[in-house]
Amino acid sequence: MAKTKFILDEERIPRHWYNIAADLPSPVPPPLHPGTGEPIGPDMLEPLFPMALIGQEVSAEREIEIPEPVRAVYRQWRPTPLFRAHRLEQHLQTPARIYYKYEGVSPTGSHKPNTAVAQAFYNKEAGVRRLTTETGAGQWGSSLAYAAAHFGLDVDVYMVRVSYDQKPYRRALMETFGARCVASPSDETESGRAILAKTPDSTGSLGIAISEAVEKAAQADDTKYALGSVLNHVLTHQTVIGLEALEQLEQLDAYPDVLVGCTGGGSNFAGLVLPFIGAQLRGGPSPRVVAVEPAACPSLTRGKYAYDFGDTGHLTPLVKMHTLGSTFVPPGFHAGGLRYHGMAPLVSHLQALDLLEAVAYKQLEVFAAGVEFARVEGILPAPEATHAVKGAIDEAIKARESGERRTILFNLCGHGHFDMQAYTDYFAGKLKDQTYDESELAMALAGLPSVQAAE
Amino acid sequence: MAKTKFILDEERIPRHWYNIAADLPSPVPPPLHPGTGEPIGPDMLEPLFPMALIGQEVSAEREIEIPEPVRAVYRQWRPTPLFRAHRLEQHLQTPARIYYKYEGVSPTGSHKPNTAVAQAFYNKEAGVRRLTTETGAGQWGSSLAYAAAHFGLDVDVYMVRVSYDQKPYRRALMETFGARCVASPSDETESGRAILAKTPDSTGSLGIAISEAVEKAAQADDTKYALGSVLNHVLTHQTVIGLEALEQLEQLDAYPDVLVGCTGGGSNFAGLVLPFIGAQLRGGPSPRVVAVEPAACPSLTRGKYAYDFGDTGHLTPLVKMHTLGSTFVPPGFHAGGLRYHGMAPLVSHLQALDLLEAVAYKQLEVFAAGVEFARVEGILPAPEATHAVKGAIDEAIKARESGERRTILFNLCGHGHFDMQAYTDYFAGKLKDQTYDESELAMALAGLPSVQAAE
Repeated sequence: MAKTKFILDEERIPRHWYNIAADLPSPVPPPLHPGTGEPIGPDMLEPLFPMALIGQEVSAEREIEIPEPVRAVYRQWRPTPLFRAHRLEQHLQTPARIYYKYEGVSPTGSHKPNTAVAQAFYNKEAGVRRLTTETGAGQWGSSLAYAAAHFGLDVDVYMVRVSYDQKPYRRALMETFGARCVASPSDETESGRAILAKTPDSTGSLGIAISEAVEKAAQADDTKYALGSVLNHVLTHQTVIGLEALEQLEQLDAYPDVLVGCTGGGSNFAGLVLPFIGAQLRGGPSPRVVAVEPAACPSLTRGKYAYDFGDTGHLTPLVKMHTLGSTFVPPGFHAGGLRYHGMAPLVSHLQALDLLEAVAYKQLEVFAAGVEFARVEGILPAPEATHAVKGAIDEAIKARESGERRTILFNLCGHGHFDMQAYTDYFAGKLKDQTYDESELAMALAGLPSVQAAE
Repeated sequence: MAKTKFILDEERIPRHWYNIAADLPSPVPPPLHPGTGEPIGPDMLEPLFPMALIGQEVSAEREIEIPEPVRAVYRQWRPTPLFRAHRLEQHLQTPARIYYKYEGVSPTGSHKPNTAVAQAFYNKEAGVRRLTTETGAGQWGSSLAYAAAHFGLDVDVYMVRVSYDQKPYRRALMETFGARCVASPSDETESGRAILAKTPDSTGSLGIAISEAVEKAAQADDTKYALGSVLNHVLTHQTVIGLEALEQLEQLDAYPDVLVGCTGGGSNFAGLVLPFIGAQLRGGPSPRVVAVEPAACPSLTRGKYAYDFGDTGHLTPLVKMHTLGSTFVPPGFHAGGLRYHGMAPLVSHLQALDLLEAVAYKQLEVFAAGVEFARVEGILPAPEATHAVKGAIDEAIKARESGERRTILFNLCGHGHFDMQAYTDYFAGKLKDQTYDESELAMALAGLPSVQAAE
């Protein structure tokens, strides 16, 4: 009987994160100060992040040691299993071998704790007592809540008001882990009060929630801010996914011909693919690397590679990334973790270097793929992860059509247990293929900051 | 660094279920025909169950081979991890070593697929095309839906109307796996139509749903019925839990002094403890075995050991069990899987043989234990499982008080991802310690069938 899942002993949790900066042919363009257009220094980030993380953000070291206390928390669920999708292969009648790395076994059901635990640890080491963050759907907020509980830190999560009201279960999970969850806009910050003064019944936005979390962190000496994607150090923490997968496949004497992941901010995708791309840059095999994004928020396939703000409120530095424009508001599709106007600068840079390709799928086709996958593999994917599932299925069908015995590896970054409303709506026929307004996208792109010209 | 989780390779999935009937000093009293008071024969069960399962129900063989196709499906998530609760031990400042077997890694998040897969397999082998079942909270219905999808069987799940309306997410999970979910009472059966004629807005009950599922199965040649707990063969299928735990502990050179599980119908509890009790009966160590039940439905601590009907509609044979009376309606607490008026005949028999002890807890104290556990161990227990958590914590505290280095093993039978309304209510202060009316219990016990006298 062929094996279904490949599990490493917890002693095999990686001892280092992989930092691809050491192997890139050219560096990721630096973040710029929006006023001066000059690269920003570490000191400008210090009010928000502990120095250890700022150091990782700009490090060129290939290996960054994972502190033992972080590995100790990882032991609760890592190494995560690598599955061989025997039943999916049979179901698709494909000669391809399909593997998936499953991050849904974590305490909050996604890859997010990989970096949340690291960030909580470094903040604790730096004497921080409280973390602030924003959350939309709640995946990140609950992961930071879990991690902070381990290290005895308080957490204030500014949760977009509409999610706060509509997703009480994610909120309950955050509260279970001991976090304080605040509906944003709130009266706890200047930025929140300013919004409420104008719009008392504001339903909030991720941009507003970021402003509140950043403002709180900047004001208090014992408080810092934590971000769940986009930044280099966040992506680096996620490389435990790919490093484990490399070792698991090595034990099988297998290597992927195609890597697939879904992209929102880019962190789960990067976590899987960076170690493989790094191996390629050092002279190893060259798998195809496919980023799958939602057609309703297609930063890699429709965005511009340009300097832009990370938030709608324009409080962040300018970063060079594939962006739909910081004023672009994606329609309300269900993969909340993929509703970001930009793409991590590091992932954007890899696309500019032709090290990955991107594809966009619509909502109904990814949900159909998610249900198909659940029926044959027994795991219900998160709406975000259904994009990767659909991408992998399409690669397997291409392999069937060409008769090639390709090896496909994708990242199943989370389960959908907290997203059942989406599946309920799908079965009730209420889901639609959301689209954005082309003229609004054009306007958002036309409004990109003028620092572009100065380049 | 001490290890956190102990994982067996999937080759170590047990090859046999353990049937404790072979080791019992006296047999479990047989089910009786309610009309004649005589033991019922296999032929009376044949309209409802395939012969292979009826054979297991009455088997005296110690080992029942697990068919390879069942083991192949088990490979998706078994062997389940055994965790050492280092952080909980530290948190409780106890010298006890706390281990827990975690069944929440299954496709539906509980132990239920262990028997659902087996039942679907044997029905498929017998040429059955459709299974019917009832479900309350939905744990069992979704597990049977998952299992049936693997073997290409159709499933009709009669779901208690009030749950159907209030728990759309469990329903969506069943539909994801391809089951047809019907609100009960329905107009698809005589029994359903009879109820609706009298009470058009009936919110249903487990008793009514059982009647509908049984009626449908009895009527059609290609249709049989499946039950998720109580019966001997169901408990036997669950022994994979304890058999794996025995092997995992053996590798650690450890053996439990205390075993703890929560009890509703009795299947997850039996699954953990039967192999240990069997070893004891064959001359091995004698751990204490603690069954934890809800104070609001306390069949083991307050019920009578007597012959009773398994359902409120009195369609089933009479079985000897600890019962609160088949007319007893427990109050609406959140551990839906523990709201059964009786206890599995096998578990009841073990209590009569003094092979286990029972304790009952109230709702608020078990939720407090569940939240405490989630914060330190990172796994959110199902409301049912919080009873076992509370039982284990109390044993660990007793060990601290007596200074004994006891080894405690409990069954964490499922996660609470689909039960977040309960946690939401808990944090909102809306949960109460539900109680039943003592006079109603007295009446239900007084109404036990008269076959008692004939014994």
